[in-house]
Amino acid sequence: MIKTDILIIGAGPTGLFAVFEAGLLQLKCHLIDALPQAGGQCSEIYPKKPIYDIPGFPEVLAGDLVDNLMEQIKPFQPGFTLGERAETIEKLDDGSFIVTTNKGTQHHAPIVAIAGGLGSFEPRKPLLENLEKYEDNGVAYMIKEPEIYRGKKVLIAGGGDSALDWSIFLADVADEVTLVHRRNEFRGALDSVEKVQQLKNEGKINLITPAEVVSLKGEDHLEKVTVKNTTTSEETDVEVDNFIPLFGLSPKLGPISDWGLEIEKNAIKVDNSLDYQTNIPGIYAIGDVNTYPGKLKLILCGFHEATLMCQSAYQKIFPDKKYVMKYTTVGGVTGFDGSKKEAPKAVVKAID
Amino acid sequence: MIKTDILIIGAGPTGLFAVFEAGLLQLKCHLIDALPQAGGQCSEIYPKKPIYDIPGFPEVLAGDLVDNLMEQIKPFQPGFTLGERAETIEKLDDGSFIVTTNKGTQHHAPIVAIAGGLGSFEPRKPLLENLEKYEDNGVAYMIKEPEIYRGKKVLIAGGGDSALDWSIFLADVADEVTLVHRRNEFRGALDSVEKVQQLKNEGKINLITPAEVVSLKGEDHLEKVTVKNTTTSEETDVEVDNFIPLFGLSPKLGPISDWGLEIEKNAIKVDNSLDYQTNIPGIYAIGDVNTYPGKLKLILCGFHEATLMCQSAYQKIFPDKKYVMKYTTVGGVTGFDGSKKEAPKAVVKAID
Repeated sequence: MIKTDILIIGAGPTGLFAVFEAGLLQLKCHLIDALPQAGGQCSEIYPKKPIYDIPGFPEVLAGDLVDNLMEQIKPFQPGFTLGERAETIEKLDDGSFIVTTNKGTQHHAPIVAIAGGLGSFEPRKPLLENLEKYEDNGVAYMIKEPEIYRGKKVLIAGGGDSALDWSIFLADVADEVTLVHRRNEFRGALDSVEKVQQLKNEGKINLITPAEVVSLKGEDHLEKVTVKNTTTSEETDVEVDNFIPLFGLSPKLGPISDWGLEIEKNAIKVDNSLDYQTNIPGIYAIGDVNTYPGKLKLILCGFHEATLMCQSAYQKIFPDKKYVMKYTTVGGVTGFDGSKKEAPKAVVKAID
Repeated sequence: MIKTDILIIGAGPTGLFAVFEAGLLQLKCHLIDALPQAGGQCSEIYPKKPIYDIPGFPEVLAGDLVDNLMEQIKPFQPGFTLGERAETIEKLDDGSFIVTTNKGTQHHAPIVAIAGGLGSFEPRKPLLENLEKYEDNGVAYMIKEPEIYRGKKVLIAGGGDSALDWSIFLADVADEVTLVHRRNEFRGALDSVEKVQQLKNEGKINLITPAEVVSLKGEDHLEKVTVKNTTTSEETDVEVDNFIPLFGLSPKLGPISDWGLEIEKNAIKVDNSLDYQTNIPGIYAIGDVNTYPGKLKLILCGFHEATLMCQSAYQKIFPDKKYVMKYTTVGGVTGFDGSKKEAPKAVVKAID
């Protein structure tokens, strides 16, 4: 059982920044995210795209923003349960919560902050017989550890940035990379499309277009897929160890919608006049996942909500303590790892 | 008469970021600030000190944050009335406002956003007879244009960073720089204290300590000050063109407190459940100057408040238009200066 002060569901920018604000209050955080890495959409969907409305950054790549936040929260040593979806919640008699993921990992905390963005990102799956049989036996919808494909025969399906970028990446790792797309045209960053063209010319990527995978074969593990040319209807068998359809992710509020929270417009209603708490005391919702009058789904709003949530959480955890806010410029930042950052102190020194 | 869409009182980080959010909505802003430059406290009080709690910046110097914000809002060409204090406000029959400064500059706008921080910074003045007579005639409490001291004899009084830093700066500009402090010990950044010691050794700064200025003389313009040694009580006359006491700035809510706004704990009450509007429709208060349940005086909270304020202002100015928010990553940023920043577009391109 993982124990923490604030259990944060969702490791996007809002969830990450909550770790920092909690840390200033000496509260520890643990984050759960269905994606295999921190950063939410910024890491998974648009890491190389610029954001222009983060205050103080005339322009910042989404991936860089996440890197900066990870660096900022490092002193507060957050824990992570990644690649697992928060599934059920149980309120104990003492008011604390146990949250269990789809893989059975249990987390215990007095405070739960849902920073789930638009929901957990679920892959769009192809309609194929036996698909489930091969899940975790050769079929995957996200690439968590590229190293497991070393020396393997991999077939990627898809026509967007993910399919292009992972084909490029795995061309150096896997034994064989085949890219299948139902059109000849790919949609993505120009340099990615050009790089795939080059790797194809060099024989490092097998390209099959316009085509789609129509069946999967194999004893226990995937051994073969059948690829059908969508123009000629001709079918070819390709020997593969892995089939990775990258057809995009679509966000779903998912199991959280069954937690008894007040939901409106596919988002969680919170008390924005005070602390972004939900209708269940001790559960907060911050960032894009919440709604209130005038709500804007902007990262910068999530930062503010996370900050006020942490103050409220502190009062709940320590009802008798009075917290006196200290500016970081004055008090510095003292990490749980013993690190200390602080402004250079003024000296008092005679001039003679 | 200066005309704008949103008149922002206070050019600190919150006021500056409001320009950006307003700009995304195609609203123009003009800012008034009592200080001679934009940035508020960040520029005036602690430009070289690090802030650790701006989201996405593990560490940023206050002055750099202001520079970044100025860069970020540049496409939206804000106007500035600097070195003047907003003094009076008049509500016209059509609901718009005229704000007049202490120097008589008039501003007209349908929306006023007070982003006044802790108030306008007023210098602490020494208790000296005739002091007022010489104000603008040799006596100044802030240095707005250092060039006016070129070739002059300047006497600075004070023992902190401002006194040290301006003595160093003016040593290269003025004909003579004298630094007077009532103690031998100075309080400031180590390198500033050491630099003053060095300039004193080189004869580029005259140092008189422990001492204080006790009287001012001169026909119309300042000509002479009397400096008294606080140990021996010995008095010396020093010929000067300028006397600049730098005894610190202290924030005062000032004239704004007479505008009929609801004030609580020296701050302006706002409706945090919606749009940070005050009790007077059309006047908002954002950042450290406002108060509401759970308020935290943090720059990052001001950013959020500024953003929601702009949305509400837009609805007031264009009651019949429906604004559909576009993410900057998707829609880019189109400046009033014709500039356009946007994410590289995806291409659709065949691979053969």
